[in-house]
Amino acid sequence: MSTPGLISVDWGTTNLRTYLADLNGGILAQVESPSGILAVENGAFADVLRAAIGDWIAAHGRLPVVMSGMIGSRQGWVEAPYVRCPASIRDIADALTVFDVDGIGAVHLVPGLDHLPPGEPPDVMRGEETQILGIMATAPSSDATLVHPGTHSKWATVAGNAIVGFKTYMTGEVYGALKNHTILGRLMKTGRAEGHGFLHGVEAARQDGTAGDLLHQLFSVRTLGLFELLAPDELPEYLSGLLIGSEIKAAAEAGQSITIFGNDALTERYGKAADALGLTWNRGPEHSVVAGQLLLARAAGLLGNTP
Amino acid sequence: MSTPGLISVDWGTTNLRTYLADLNGGILAQVESPSGILAVENGAFADVLRAAIGDWIAAHGRLPVVMSGMIGSRQGWVEAPYVRCPASIRDIADALTVFDVDGIGAVHLVPGLDHLPPGEPPDVMRGEETQILGIMATAPSSDATLVHPGTHSKWATVAGNAIVGFKTYMTGEVYGALKNHTILGRLMKTGRAEGHGFLHGVEAARQDGTAGDLLHQLFSVRTLGLFELLAPDELPEYLSGLLIGSEIKAAAEAGQSITIFGNDALTERYGKAADALGLTWNRGPEHSVVAGQLLLARAAGLLGNTP
Repeated sequence: MSTPGLISVDWGTTNLRTYLADLNGGILAQVESPSGILAVENGAFADVLRAAIGDWIAAHGRLPVVMSGMIGSRQGWVEAPYVRCPASIRDIADALTVFDVDGIGAVHLVPGLDHLPPGEPPDVMRGEETQILGIMATAPSSDATLVHPGTHSKWATVAGNAIVGFKTYMTGEVYGALKNHTILGRLMKTGRAEGHGFLHGVEAARQDGTAGDLLHQLFSVRTLGLFELLAPDELPEYLSGLLIGSEIKAAAEAGQSITIFGNDALTERYGKAADALGLTWNRGPEHSVVAGQLLLARAAGLLGNTP
Repeated sequence: MSTPGLISVDWGTTNLRTYLADLNGGILAQVESPSGILAVENGAFADVLRAAIGDWIAAHGRLPVVMSGMIGSRQGWVEAPYVRCPASIRDIADALTVFDVDGIGAVHLVPGLDHLPPGEPPDVMRGEETQILGIMATAPSSDATLVHPGTHSKWATVAGNAIVGFKTYMTGEVYGALKNHTILGRLMKTGRAEGHGFLHGVEAARQDGTAGDLLHQLFSVRTLGLFELLAPDELPEYLSGLLIGSEIKAAAEAGQSITIFGNDALTERYGKAADALGLTWNRGPEHSVVAGQLLLARAAGLLGNTP
């Protein structure tokens, strides 16, 4: 068994994931629990963390601990201020927020990123930057467009050793709100993931002559049901295709090459839409937080001179 | 007092409005109640209608009765099949669904319209067609783009004596779902209708370089709040401006002339956005159902030869 070199903590809104890793990113042990920051009462973050990683420290002694995710937000444990894009690995490693925790020692909190393109509103991410660094650590070429689909999809541009900028799309959350809280859900049945509904929706987004007609196109989720042109169990898929298609069409150009990373099912779904819209895509790793934290820990000199 | 010539029934999802009108469209009496079709139990539509207009019939004898709105939908009393666009006044008058009601006599139900532009999904309206006919009956020129803002905004093209086609935008309903059921509502306070929030949102929609970036732009409702660039009570207004601006930008061209009709406050709001987007607009009548029903009743020969 290789030697433990890092305790990696991925602490989000709804889950806490901790990893005991070696210096090559190999996972020696892992614990996952629903103790996301919203589930921690009375600010007892230290207790929750000790419960999760205390055994590893007892067995192996103190190790560098790096944390990323919403734990560094205003609603989390300690607020780690945003680093502004373009943000290099160096910039981010220099901005780790360090504090001591009884029984654990120094804990290193990864900052989120903000991006303020001239003349546009600000954008923010917290957690995805670490996954992106993890991909940068292992990718053959460092220039890429990295896409993390989800509740709030992130499209990041990476060049050299820096995250140059990014854009957030509220696709996943808008999908849920429309499906569950508008008339569009009324004719829907769920249960079938196959069928033509999804690609039909992507195609509708592609054909959108007057680009930007989404508020109109959404109504077709209802009328295609009313006119029985799509079956009730195709309608949620059609809405999904329409929204994801609209996101990709706005964010990318035909022929562009993107890397999609994260949840397997979502990656598959985005890949299908990317194919239909004429993009080239490849699949990034589902889990890259440990690799990203290891990169930062090394840059911050936390790992000594060990390889 | 002029002579009653028509009983006009505007029966929607949440309200029932009945009017006793003369043949010039003058309103002699009116009754409004929350007895929309969703509030009518066990299909007791005849009882509800008798309760609303029975006194008028007792006082003036039987009169032509015309009904429009969701009462003619599948969820209503009797389904009045859609008439397809382009739909002339003649087409719509010929498609009235007529049935007898005890104590009332013949009731004439106005059909909704559907529109099937080649290669696009179907669109439907039910109720607005009658308001549009009412505006056509009084407008100096019959060629126009008529806009009815609301939960489901309608943009109708009228030429000669026909409604040529229309498009639905889910703007109002999407606004409610995003405000009440996504993270965007979290930083919001309500209570201030003035301020720059609304026009700031319209401007963001106007500047949308990559047209169709709405799913991204929505996230700015959150970040402008996070960065304290907009006050919490400006955020709902900003979201409203962003959505209405996006609708108008997609539906119209700069310089185009439109007539906005319906609810005064919404007309005002859409007018402000239209100004900011370089459109010319004028205000249509807030109430035009009676005029529309009168036009159809005359075309259907229900009013005899009286002027």
